[in-house]
Amino acid sequence: MTPPLITLTTDFGSADPFVGAMKGVIASILPEAHIHDISHQVAPFDVLDGALVVAAASRYWPARTIHVVVVDPGVGTARRPLLASAGGQYFIAPDNGVLSLVFDREPEFRAWHITADHYFLHPVSRTFHGRDIFAPSAAWLARNWQPESFGPEIANAERLPLPQLEISGQAIRGAVLRADRFGNLLLNLRPEDAPQLAPAARFRLRIGSAEITRLVAAFGEAPEGEPCLIEGSSGFFEIAVNRSSAARATGAGPGAPFTLDIL
Amino acid sequence: MTPPLITLTTDFGSADPFVGAMKGVIASILPEAHIHDISHQVAPFDVLDGALVVAAASRYWPARTIHVVVVDPGVGTARRPLLASAGGQYFIAPDNGVLSLVFDREPEFRAWHITADHYFLHPVSRTFHGRDIFAPSAAWLARNWQPESFGPEIANAERLPLPQLEISGQAIRGAVLRADRFGNLLLNLRPEDAPQLAPAARFRLRIGSAEITRLVAAFGEAPEGEPCLIEGSSGFFEIAVNRSSAARATGAGPGAPFTLDIL
Amino acid sequence: MTPPLITLTTDFGSADPFVGAMKGVIASILPEAHIHDISHQVAPFDVLDGALVVAAASRYWPARTIHVVVVDPGVGTARRPLLASAGGQYFIAPDNGVLSLVFDREPEFRAWHITADHYFLHPVSRTFHGRDIFAPSAAWLARNWQPESFGPEIANAERLPLPQLEISGQAIRGAVLRADRFGNLLLNLRPEDAPQLAPAARFRLRIGSAEITRLVAAFGEAPEGEPCLIEGSSGFFEIAVNRSSAARATGAGPGAPFTLDIL
Repeated sequence: MTPPLITLTTDFGSADPFVGAMKGVIASILPEAHIHDISHQVAPFDVLDGALVVAAASRYWPARTIHVVVVDPGVGTARRPLLASAGGQYFIAPDNGVLSLVFDREPEFRAWHITADHYFLHPVSRTFHGRDIFAPSAAWLARNWQPESFGPEIANAERLPLPQLEISGQAIRGAVLRADRFGNLLLNLRPEDAPQLAPAARFRLRIGSAEITRLVAAFGEAPEGEPCLIEGSSGFFEIAVNRSSAARATGAGPGAPFTLDIL
Repeated sequence: MTPPLITLTTDFGSADPFVGAMKGVIASILPEAHIHDISHQVAPFDVLDGALVVAAASRYWPARTIHVVVVDPGVGTARRPLLASAGGQYFIAPDNGVLSLVFDREPEFRAWHITADHYFLHPVSRTFHGRDIFAPSAAWLARNWQPESFGPEIANAERLPLPQLEISGQAIRGAVLRADRFGNLLLNLRPEDAPQLAPAARFRLRIGSAEITRLVAAFGEAPEGEPCLIEGSSGFFEIAVNRSSAARATGAGPGAPFTLDIL
Repeated sequence: MTPPLITLTTDFGSADPFVGAMKGVIASILPEAHIHDISHQVAPFDVLDGALVVAAASRYWPARTIHVVVVDPGVGTARRPLLASAGGQYFIAPDNGVLSLVFDREPEFRAWHITADHYFLHPVSRTFHGRDIFAPSAAWLARNWQPESFGPEIANAERLPLPQLEISGQAIRGAVLRADRFGNLLLNLRPEDAPQLAPAARFRLRIGSAEITRLVAAFGEAPEGEPCLIEGSSGFFEIAVNRSSAARATGAGPGAPFTLDIL
């Protein structure tokens, strides 16, 4: 028999009792749950960062996985708690756009405003809904599989305004979405945005202090110390330096602009 | 059937093989255990920090959960290994006060000095009792549920001298217990210590470089950039800045004093 | 019935979706797997660091545990994906020497070049074999337990050139292998290399800015602030400072040389 799978993605870090409290709430309702950490190192308060992480990781999980996502600077204010189904999986999160990239990928998604407070941990604090609303909702969903029981279905879940590409002829302007642990810089540029960018293409990409003219297929193909363009594993192009940090080499970070000219 | 639940709280960080070795020892004795990380980022050697984390997280776990807590600067010296039952749960830790706040919350707790070395991993090192004593004791306890079999019951488990409040009339002096990942500062001040601190109360709290006069109910209610007082999710008042760090805004950290005047 | 045990050791950190994607791939193939994190904080690109961590942690796991190890700066290049059996356990990793210390400990190990791409996640990216090759191979191995089905057995798995000791008479030269979270410095010196190093031995060990003359059996036996030699829990001698950091006290880190004179 398949165990219930619940994943956690938060900006809580791992030095505080927050994550441990959420796991305890889940285990109290559903001790047999398999609780898997995706990340607790989302940049603090950074909804876009959380949206990118959960979208990239969740697509590899099986149907009926329940992903709990807590990047929630508006905790305790009017923003709604959300339950969504998308691509056969479930997502439980504040309604602040953190599921935007999941919704982009799964346009058939459905969303419910979680209002059924008999599922909550009482008293509900106004500073920690991860523990008092999101974690228990996930565990109860894994027991009854009835998203309709959590509240009314809604059609206006929040979406983030993602950084947009500006494409004019052979010139593209965009921005860095995030830097990963290795210092690779994810651009808001997907292969389908620039089909001209084949291995033999001639181009010039300016970002931070660097000018990049080489597209490689594997990190190890990049000459030592030279920032190169590469198709990353999340579906975005990235700037990378072989065995080193492109963030450091270019001086660019999340939000930094780039310009790409196809020659 | 409910799986055995074992949690880990340590100051081991996550770059070293220590946590992985402990999990392996548990899995060798009890492969079906659900081993859940609470935190491995307790401040190194900081028993009070560990005491705060495990007390805050453990209360949300179900009965029969076994919490292994290893913040153990005295490893290999005369300090005793401890097994405690409190509130229906079990705790395994060095007898150095790291369970103080659990004991404060559960005055009916019982404690045993772990001496039954047939449960230990041999040879027992003098630098890593987490692996050689605490982890295997947790796994064997989850197999036999007989705390008495681990050693003699004791009545003098260590307690930490927690930072005390000084209350004189409408003036209260206290200290910061810890800073969390977001820079929120936990004070050794609970709502029951200052029932006058209602939302409409007038007060002045001095801490570090800041003077605080506003109590908010949710982080999002605090004006941008202004350090405010808030009732935190662990049962302590906290100093917080909306979407930013109170530690940075006030210059205060763990141990820093504060004075509160109710006006 | 014993659940399948799969551990993860990577240099991926915990801020990115990489680890969550690997867990999802495993859970998709084998939802009942118990997936345990050993460490995701191996120093980036540092194969020796990963080799030390996985060798130290894996020895405490039961037979049939599958350890997935991804420290893989050569991902997408010609280096082979490897499946190894050693000491009754399994290891899945790039063939870049990251299993060297496991092989040193278990000379009867066997290794297979993973070529059976029907086990892989398609399309196989050239930047993330952890997700596309190593994780699914681990899950499928836990379903069929047939290492032979993954590819041809090989006899030339890569080994790292480990830092060697130079022993001449009573003088030994060596190097720091790694620093742990507490700042303890692991030396490439094992008790069997210097049987003269008993508690009463007179010796002088020079490392960084420090001269060390004391061997202690427990951290708590070291006088405050004095760097001392101690037999660590991983089988190497270490330099340690009681409740503080030897790395900071000596100014030495990974790769730093030491000289030991037995007097």
